[in-house]
Amino acid sequence: MLTGVFAPIPTPFDERGEILEDKLIENVNRWAETKLTGLVVLGSNGEFVYLSEDEKVRLLRIVRENLPEDRPVIAGTGCESTRNTIELTCKAAEAGSSVALVITPHFFGSGMTSQRLHRHYTELADASPIPIMLYNMPRNTGISMSVDLISDLAQHTNIIGIKDSGGNIAQISQMVRDTPDDFAVFAGSGSFLLPSLFMGAVGGTLAVANVVPNLCVDILEAFNAGDYDRARDLQRKILELNASVTTGFGIPGLKAALDLLGFYGGPPRLPLTPATDDAKKRLQELLQLCGAL
Amino acid sequence: MLTGVFAPIPTPFDERGEILEDKLIENVNRWAETKLTGLVVLGSNGEFVYLSEDEKVRLLRIVRENLPEDRPVIAGTGCESTRNTIELTCKAAEAGSSVALVITPHFFGSGMTSQRLHRHYTELADASPIPIMLYNMPRNTGISMSVDLISDLAQHTNIIGIKDSGGNIAQISQMVRDTPDDFAVFAGSGSFLLPSLFMGAVGGTLAVANVVPNLCVDILEAFNAGDYDRARDLQRKILELNASVTTGFGIPGLKAALDLLGFYGGPPRLPLTPATDDAKKRLQELLQLCGAL
Amino acid sequence: MLTGVFAPIPTPFDERGEILEDKLIENVNRWAETKLTGLVVLGSNGEFVYLSEDEKVRLLRIVRENLPEDRPVIAGTGCESTRNTIELTCKAAEAGSSVALVITPHFFGSGMTSQRLHRHYTELADASPIPIMLYNMPRNTGISMSVDLISDLAQHTNIIGIKDSGGNIAQISQMVRDTPDDFAVFAGSGSFLLPSLFMGAVGGTLAVANVVPNLCVDILEAFNAGDYDRARDLQRKILELNASVTTGFGIPGLKAALDLLGFYGGPPRLPLTPATDDAKKRLQELLQLCGAL
Amino acid sequence: MLTGVFAPIPTPFDERGEILEDKLIENVNRWAETKLTGLVVLGSNGEFVYLSEDEKVRLLRIVRENLPEDRPVIAGTGCESTRNTIELTCKAAEAGSSVALVITPHFFGSGMTSQRLHRHYTELADASPIPIMLYNMPRNTGISMSVDLISDLAQHTNIIGIKDSGGNIAQISQMVRDTPDDFAVFAGSGSFLLPSLFMGAVGGTLAVANVVPNLCVDILEAFNAGDYDRARDLQRKILELNASVTTGFGIPGLKAALDLLGFYGGPPRLPLTPATDDAKKRLQELLQLCGAL
Repeated sequence: MLTGVFAPIPTPFDERGEILEDKLIENVNRWAETKLTGLVVLGSNGEFVYLSEDEKVRLLRIVRENLPEDRPVIAGTGCESTRNTIELTCKAAEAGSSVALVITPHFFGSGMTSQRLHRHYTELADASPIPIMLYNMPRNTGISMSVDLISDLAQHTNIIGIKDSGGNIAQISQMVRDTPDDFAVFAGSGSFLLPSLFMGAVGGTLAVANVVPNLCVDILEAFNAGDYDRARDLQRKILELNASVTTGFGIPGLKAALDLLGFYGGPPRLPLTPATDDAKKRLQELLQLCGAL
Repeated sequence: MLTGVFAPIPTPFDERGEILEDKLIENVNRWAETKLTGLVVLGSNGEFVYLSEDEKVRLLRIVRENLPEDRPVIAGTGCESTRNTIELTCKAAEAGSSVALVITPHFFGSGMTSQRLHRHYTELADASPIPIMLYNMPRNTGISMSVDLISDLAQHTNIIGIKDSGGNIAQISQMVRDTPDDFAVFAGSGSFLLPSLFMGAVGGTLAVANVVPNLCVDILEAFNAGDYDRARDLQRKILELNASVTTGFGIPGLKAALDLLGFYGGPPRLPLTPATDDAKKRLQELLQLCGAL
Repeated sequence: MLTGVFAPIPTPFDERGEILEDKLIENVNRWAETKLTGLVVLGSNGEFVYLSEDEKVRLLRIVRENLPEDRPVIAGTGCESTRNTIELTCKAAEAGSSVALVITPHFFGSGMTSQRLHRHYTELADASPIPIMLYNMPRNTGISMSVDLISDLAQHTNIIGIKDSGGNIAQISQMVRDTPDDFAVFAGSGSFLLPSLFMGAVGGTLAVANVVPNLCVDILEAFNAGDYDRARDLQRKILELNASVTTGFGIPGLKAALDLLGFYGGPPRLPLTPATDDAKKRLQELLQLCGAL
Repeated sequence: MLTGVFAPIPTPFDERGEILEDKLIENVNRWAETKLTGLVVLGSNGEFVYLSEDEKVRLLRIVRENLPEDRPVIAGTGCESTRNTIELTCKAAEAGSSVALVITPHFFGSGMTSQRLHRHYTELADASPIPIMLYNMPRNTGISMSVDLISDLAQHTNIIGIKDSGGNIAQISQMVRDTPDDFAVFAGSGSFLLPSLFMGAVGGTLAVANVVPNLCVDILEAFNAGDYDRARDLQRKILELNASVTTGFGIPGLKAALDLLGFYGGPPRLPLTPATDDAKKRLQELLQLCGAL
């Protein structure tokens, strides 16, 4: 059963938008020194929608080669079509990824019925050499999988969990209740990590874990140790920082925060543009409040 | 500081839509035998938008007169205008209500800025003889108060808490953190009572508490006793029943469930219409699953 | 068959929120000098949600007594409950109103099914001494009646038209097609008056008609005369002014614009607050651009 | 200046999801016999999100080679990143496309500010060998470009028009008014073609033009000839058929309708699945009502 805290890492680009492999390796080496369980490559924070398939596979290889073997790499392999998703998932497996994290197809919004999503994930899970983790992200996709659908898919032996970024705590409670005990429910944002754990989630894939990895792991550890007061204090502490590197300033904010911490953040690819000076100033304050600076 | 579990009671009507005082009294007497802390009169489940001011005051008096003195009555007194809200709140105070629960004005949606809501609640709190509880209900109003606004309003000595029906657990965490220790954050739905308590809420105003009052209080008691496994079990147990008497079948569902339990539910006022036979059958199943039937 | 351009008038208040009858009469006298077909009293611009039933009836009487007999008064009589709507509609009829304009009940959003709305309007139309005009206003109510529902209701002899503020031109086209020839489809905003007329609408109830009544009537007249170029020019001319007194600055903006034009606008009731100085300055520019100042 | 009616053609696949070139050519030959001005390849109806870059270029070449030279090919070249969009647009130009139709990037929803979209389209227009047509499609993207942004971009000599699928007729009126006379505003759906033309649009890119091409062109011709009654009749006639091949049954419906008409429709790629038998039956009725069957 998958558990722990993962950071969905951003992709380092230079000013012209080219991937900087050496900077990626440096970043990975630093994350390897933290308590993070592993890394997610090609998540939305990795700007996966801006990457070619070749770039995606290259990134997966580099991270896998540079991260200690005992730290799993989760690969974001969701595409709009079932065939492309299967193809990329197979390549991710070849590149050494442990798990594929697969966002719901969404461009044809209302066309993405539960029946069609069920078939999409089932054909994928049948074909994939590595286990599948569902990825529910209503904010960016406009689609929220029902608990019934999740519960059905959880019966598939090759579908081992879900990352839920919707944050509806009642729905998370129900997901935990209606899926097998070894089905891993992960919080998809630092803003609701602790209450999700309390209702039965077993991990998190958190943008904010890029910048304060140990603090995020501390929440999980305090919770597991039954030290709820400490867990609550830490959870409350990261709320604004979490918001600033997600809904607030987005990926440019996340990258700017990494720059402030001595990682390589760098610019996003266009049409995204770097964080403003005001945003950077605010991020600095928030990092200081969390003791990261 | 206000704490505990309250049921927002429905208003009993006959087939022509007239209020049935005797049935109301019978219901109140039965709720008085439960572990409920008190009752909310004129909440959305009370069909307050269908009631005249005279009817509202009459209902408040009846409930107050028939409920044991140690059980507080919370009165829903929110109107669209500040002046009407103040007037009704004063009448509710005269009728013996302990607290006024005041929904955000909302018809002029985007016009309801934080600045205007701040003034609305401040003028009300200044004028009111009884303490004010804010009421955030984005689903029906389209408006969600920001934590900054709530935190500002919480400084007013006559604003003592908030009922939040939005259920954004990150926002609830932040509300608790950014308001004084004696500011009471209440969960507005049974679907997220327990995670709210875990993040610092101190009570709930729950439609489902009309039908399974002791089960709802048991969640709070188990939580307070540190018996988290039991609390979680109970929380998970009520999820569907809670949904069925709220977002699922609405007030007609709540009333039908009460009828099944031997309370008087009766028909809602038009344009609402009674629950269908299919809904009633489902409600019966859910009540049985919860041990209420 | 109802046709023409109507202004949904605001309610004049003093600084304390009391109704100023003499100012209302002065305003009505001025509108009577324009080419407006008639007035709508108690529309959303009339802040009807802030008025008591007594105030509503009083306003209807005053306007009816002061407007020339050949100019119809349309009364906004929609309430959340069917019974209150019927009661107010009967009182509006007694007060001399020609037509009742009835907004969809909406507080119990998803509960307002087509079936329930059908019954609401049918019971009302059966009971009402005056004809009913449906009022579709998705922006404020969150509810948009389907063309099927509208088409069914249009069969009732006492339901004579609809004011549509949604502005979905395909839906308006279909409404016209699927209702009897003498069913009056009215545009509910100046922003889509002309294209609505082109697709078969026969009038408009327009906030902007309060401030530039003749210009609005000119659009209708130019259209009816087949002078489409002129109609288009005028339609394009009022777009920003229309936006500024509706979605832009709201009722406070509409009232400020009236003040600038020598009508009495005055303050809205709380929680609405007067337009800012910046808004007033912008309104002045827009009124000048339209030749109203 | 671009004018006329274009059909955004679907991509023909076999049961395994492979592109059927011969079927595509047969379809193109049939469309070439109609009054259509030209074809759009790689629009959303072309399932462009399911195609690799190689497939995209291949489709563009085939259509260009098989369509008479005087019929322009518009290529859908929008990608999430600016760099990929530029690259694909250059390839589309090489493949003989006349115009690139470029949807707004949208995955990072709220991050797609007007400023960023301005830069995206400006860099693209600077680099592109062929003219750019903006593509506003709020329903699928969650993003609606403001008139100010459109008006700014329309100043670029290589940005020649916009396809608007939002259908807000007030916004379309304003777009026409605030852009140069030779900037082409196109209706993006058959449901609002005629009112758009009346307010100054000069063409349409319409899914329904795949199935009733001549009927769509007839609307434009009747409008241009000043025969408004006929134009209105035709516009009203296609409303349901239009809905059924767009929001109703989606691309599977469009493909099923083509099959019924003797074109090759075939199955969509997964996760989309073919239209149900009920949908096909309804489509047959609607095609008969429009005289296409």
